[in-house]
Amino acid sequence: MIVILKQEADKEKKAVLKGKLKALGFDIHESKGRETELWGLVGDTSIIDDDYLRANEVVEDVKRVQEPYKMANRKMHPEDTVIDIRGRKIGGGHFQVIAGPCSIESKEQIIEVAEDVKKSGAGLLRGGAFKPRTSPYSFQGLQNNGLKLLLEAKAATGLPVVTEIMTPEHLELFEDIDVVQVGARNMQNFQLLKALGKCDKTVLLKRGLANTLEELVMSAEYIMAGGNENVILCERGIRTFETSMRNTLDISAIPMLRKMTHLPIVIDPSHAAGIRWMVEPLALAAIAAGADGLMIEVHNDPESALCDGPQSMTPEGFDELMKKIRKTVEFFGKTMD
Amino acid sequence: MIVILKQEADKEKKAVLKGKLKALGFDIHESKGRETELWGLVGDTSIIDDDYLRANEVVEDVKRVQEPYKMANRKMHPEDTVIDIRGRKIGGGHFQVIAGPCSIESKEQIIEVAEDVKKSGAGLLRGGAFKPRTSPYSFQGLQNNGLKLLLEAKAATGLPVVTEIMTPEHLELFEDIDVVQVGARNMQNFQLLKALGKCDKTVLLKRGLANTLEELVMSAEYIMAGGNENVILCERGIRTFETSMRNTLDISAIPMLRKMTHLPIVIDPSHAAGIRWMVEPLALAAIAAGADGLMIEVHNDPESALCDGPQSMTPEGFDELMKKIRKTVEFFGKTMD
Amino acid sequence: MIVILKQEADKEKKAVLKGKLKALGFDIHESKGRETELWGLVGDTSIIDDDYLRANEVVEDVKRVQEPYKMANRKMHPEDTVIDIRGRKIGGGHFQVIAGPCSIESKEQIIEVAEDVKKSGAGLLRGGAFKPRTSPYSFQGLQNNGLKLLLEAKAATGLPVVTEIMTPEHLELFEDIDVVQVGARNMQNFQLLKALGKCDKTVLLKRGLANTLEELVMSAEYIMAGGNENVILCERGIRTFETSMRNTLDISAIPMLRKMTHLPIVIDPSHAAGIRWMVEPLALAAIAAGADGLMIEVHNDPESALCDGPQSMTPEGFDELMKKIRKTVEFFGKTMD
Amino acid sequence: MIVILKQEADKEKKAVLKGKLKALGFDIHESKGRETELWGLVGDTSIIDDDYLRANEVVEDVKRVQEPYKMANRKMHPEDTVIDIRGRKIGGGHFQVIAGPCSIESKEQIIEVAEDVKKSGAGLLRGGAFKPRTSPYSFQGLQNNGLKLLLEAKAATGLPVVTEIMTPEHLELFEDIDVVQVGARNMQNFQLLKALGKCDKTVLLKRGLANTLEELVMSAEYIMAGGNENVILCERGIRTFETSMRNTLDISAIPMLRKMTHLPIVIDPSHAAGIRWMVEPLALAAIAAGADGLMIEVHNDPESALCDGPQSMTPEGFDELMKKIRKTVEFFGKTMD
Repeated sequence: MIVILKQEADKEKKAVLKGKLKALGFDIHESKGRETELWGLVGDTSIIDDDYLRANEVVEDVKRVQEPYKMANRKMHPEDTVIDIRGRKIGGGHFQVIAGPCSIESKEQIIEVAEDVKKSGAGLLRGGAFKPRTSPYSFQGLQNNGLKLLLEAKAATGLPVVTEIMTPEHLELFEDIDVVQVGARNMQNFQLLKALGKCDKTVLLKRGLANTLEELVMSAEYIMAGGNENVILCERGIRTFETSMRNTLDISAIPMLRKMTHLPIVIDPSHAAGIRWMVEPLALAAIAAGADGLMIEVHNDPESALCDGPQSMTPEGFDELMKKIRKTVEFFGKTMD
Repeated sequence: MIVILKQEADKEKKAVLKGKLKALGFDIHESKGRETELWGLVGDTSIIDDDYLRANEVVEDVKRVQEPYKMANRKMHPEDTVIDIRGRKIGGGHFQVIAGPCSIESKEQIIEVAEDVKKSGAGLLRGGAFKPRTSPYSFQGLQNNGLKLLLEAKAATGLPVVTEIMTPEHLELFEDIDVVQVGARNMQNFQLLKALGKCDKTVLLKRGLANTLEELVMSAEYIMAGGNENVILCERGIRTFETSMRNTLDISAIPMLRKMTHLPIVIDPSHAAGIRWMVEPLALAAIAAGADGLMIEVHNDPESALCDGPQSMTPEGFDELMKKIRKTVEFFGKTMD
Repeated sequence: MIVILKQEADKEKKAVLKGKLKALGFDIHESKGRETELWGLVGDTSIIDDDYLRANEVVEDVKRVQEPYKMANRKMHPEDTVIDIRGRKIGGGHFQVIAGPCSIESKEQIIEVAEDVKKSGAGLLRGGAFKPRTSPYSFQGLQNNGLKLLLEAKAATGLPVVTEIMTPEHLELFEDIDVVQVGARNMQNFQLLKALGKCDKTVLLKRGLANTLEELVMSAEYIMAGGNENVILCERGIRTFETSMRNTLDISAIPMLRKMTHLPIVIDPSHAAGIRWMVEPLALAAIAAGADGLMIEVHNDPESALCDGPQSMTPEGFDELMKKIRKTVEFFGKTMD
Repeated sequence: MIVILKQEADKEKKAVLKGKLKALGFDIHESKGRETELWGLVGDTSIIDDDYLRANEVVEDVKRVQEPYKMANRKMHPEDTVIDIRGRKIGGGHFQVIAGPCSIESKEQIIEVAEDVKKSGAGLLRGGAFKPRTSPYSFQGLQNNGLKLLLEAKAATGLPVVTEIMTPEHLELFEDIDVVQVGARNMQNFQLLKALGKCDKTVLLKRGLANTLEELVMSAEYIMAGGNENVILCERGIRTFETSMRNTLDISAIPMLRKMTHLPIVIDPSHAAGIRWMVEPLALAAIAAGADGLMIEVHNDPESALCDGPQSMTPEGFDELMKKIRKTVEFFGKTMD
């Protein structure tokens, strides 16, 4: 961490700050040029806030050299993390497709979709029971009952299941759920992240609509710092000025996260595009850019879907897409097993 | 709500959709031009999702004419809502300044700051006990103990207090807190909003970093739909491409929210700017644009602040600012009482 | 075009507006519901501004059903446009790679790079002579002399050349240039677009940093409306809140533009990422998403490059990448000839 | 300028880079910590590109301490620049209102509006002759004839005139124009900026829709570096994710530009909001935040305006607003003369 001091900074005030920093355990390496005075802080700078230093009268600016995350950092863990979800591996060359409806609507619906996506080759089943909706008047999901139906679909097909949690209070309801999803709106719900850090479930952590990649990795760090290292990152489109699609898929997030962290990276082209016909090109692009998995919405009757109908594929459309996905994954040297 | 049909739409499929909409209780007013066929839906369209219609094969697009919010809508409640917080009124010409430190750090600190800001004319005291921090390694607030210290400052000064809640599980700890703040990162933590809808506390709802004004009002609607109509909206800067300041204060939010809703509107210039010297011009601009209140960070020793030091004013600086605020509020025809 | 009228609109004022619209040649199809009155305008609505209608006191809102572009619209021209640049075809299944340095620095440099990229299989040579730089103190390009050197490289290798134009006054200097590039900062330099509409050169039109896809197509329409239909669109990254990379590549632009227009679509991963090591994954993703070509910066000595060094590949790196590009283009069913 | 070197950087390569930097005239102040090696460059760093350094294999990152602008920098010119436009002063406590229609449509229109805004107290008349329009099919302005009509309005009222230039080729047509406006879309049309740098006219430089404040000041620097120091900066709203208004007025730009530069700062609330009724609160907020002037659209018949009707005020509305503006300017200690 480099502290750039103000040119006109008062000597005594600098001495006071220096004392505080030494008390925090840092070595200070000073460097004084004609116009600029710098201090290099040596020590574990993840414990110090940039803002603490910026608030000081003698400080012009602060520049981090080390990343503020540790456990998620690829530098600490050079190899890809491979997560095994009841036999389905993801990361380190293993590719998985998670598919299913936006929300669970009935026993027939979820079981029918589960059987369909299994037949097409999906490795995990998704389905929402607790739904975060912008409007209080929109369908909020079948909630507890939805979880029950999802577990019935799991029993019927053997597919591990992924579903979203909205508050730490619900955690005990998720006992038999294989992957707990943290939605984009909850990426910085830190109480939820802390609670998930204390369990041993795999967490699928979605990037917030306007969160930087560093913030996403810091949220993963919250979970990992609590003791749970089974975190999968998910890019699902960010909010920009463009209005012709729902969100802008940040495809560069894949190589950038790959460099920053060892965690598996999944792309959700359905939410990024918000339009069914755009799912295929985005899915293939994600594979080409190096993703470890995809999360795709499939509904047996999109026109009656209680949520996200426009972006849901039919089982037939998904089956066609899976053939292309499989070939593309192989072409780019990964395996779907 | 206007449904624009595809030109080549199949007759039978249109009939099916029409049947579904009638079953939902809508009257349909049809209009067929040479190139465009439109249906106007008459009825309570807040119960229907745009996406439900867009998912239908025969639908080209959907256009809402009515706003999706009801209780927060100024059309339903033309007069400004005035909220009374233990004698401090806000809204409808009543202006309030909420001031205090980012986080409560010690008994001495919070009581000293409370006394200072009271002397300068602040109407409410703020102070964070539970702190949402990007890094798990940053100071997370004094938590329960922080709440206790804040209540001691309330007892010592008589100032009503404002502090942030991060999860519904904590609600019972907030019994003696006057105003419960929902932070920007939790604006769409719907479980929290629902829980707050069931209590009778005043809620200060902050706009998320990348949330539209409509989404902000919809989050207020969540609280109001639960039965709690005491909601204050707070704009605190949005995330844009500009890098020279922390966030971009959306000053237009004030007149636009004023038109959309009857709820009081508060501006937080400290978080918007992230820099102490910029608080004054933004605060005065907010008054000029019609805000009902300000929320300003004040710390007795910003250089030692455990959080947000760079944006915190000293008590002396705040005292100077309050003189200008008072004059400006009067100039623009509001009262600070 | 649908005009939504205000509920309380004055009858006489509506009659006046109706008269004006009829005088402009529109048929008006009226539709009156209980709460909403709509007019459908039938006729060529590309001649009318939404704002002209919105300014009218009786108008609540306006909704376009038809796109505001005509010649660039795929609906008017369902087949892909194929552009032939001295034998190099692009569009409709033909894929091209444009490669070369950010700026032309010397005869040796541009000829060496030209020979290198030709050997690796690039179809066209790029090189900047007039450089748009944020700072007046940065290298502004070799200008006229740069164009001369680029034409020498063209003569030496036979590669068609692409270079940027910054002002209509320079057009005569570009006589022997094969493809004239309009940079992101000039996407809405309408005088330049009009001048290019009057010549018969192929124009590579880059999307502005914060321009919507519709605005990009409207800028192409400016050139086409002038009589020049040889326009290639180029996505090169947009400006968002994310700071870990230079720009955010909008990969969804490829399928969306494909639907909107028949013009060829090229991706510039070098400018999008701003970092050399990220060029490969973005290039492959672009092919997977359906791009018709790539534009890649290559420099024989990136560390001495006068501009954009961090994103320039070495000739060796580019040669490796071209092998992957060729295989990927074939895998996705296009040809590089 | 601080160069942060990679930990594993090769010694010989570092020596080579050091040699290059010394050859460019820099003194290098080295500082080597346990984990970090830094070089402080001493000399005129405005001549060096950050990217030139970032492209070097041994460089981890680069951090500027000095701003890249010189002539526009407040550090070089601590006092506010006051520009005198035929007797109307702006900057340094002098406040001006520029008013008039979006486009000049007829002799009657421009003279009538000119007389109206003069009566209400506007100091300068605006009116567009060359109009940058997104669509080639929209009204493009009366062009040369528009300039003529604007000069007739100037002759009739004595008001200095402001109008937009779109290309350097038109500069000679602007001989009698008092203030030449560079529109948002041309903020980085560097050929135009260079041409304006060589004349002695006052330039009103508008911020681009997605340009940072530093980029805006760099564009001013282009004009100033050419020899023309009469530059007024104008914030007119930026492009964000918010859709309820046309653009987001960046009110913080006022204090931030004030700190960065000595040039006068004008706000255009009409373009920022895009809606007539929002002009007043934004105008008053701009004064409160410290602006030196306002630019407001006024049309004698907004409903027939060929451009920007929804945001144009009527002369009566403007007259009311001017009374409030005058009082507010005085309240905040500036003079309108």
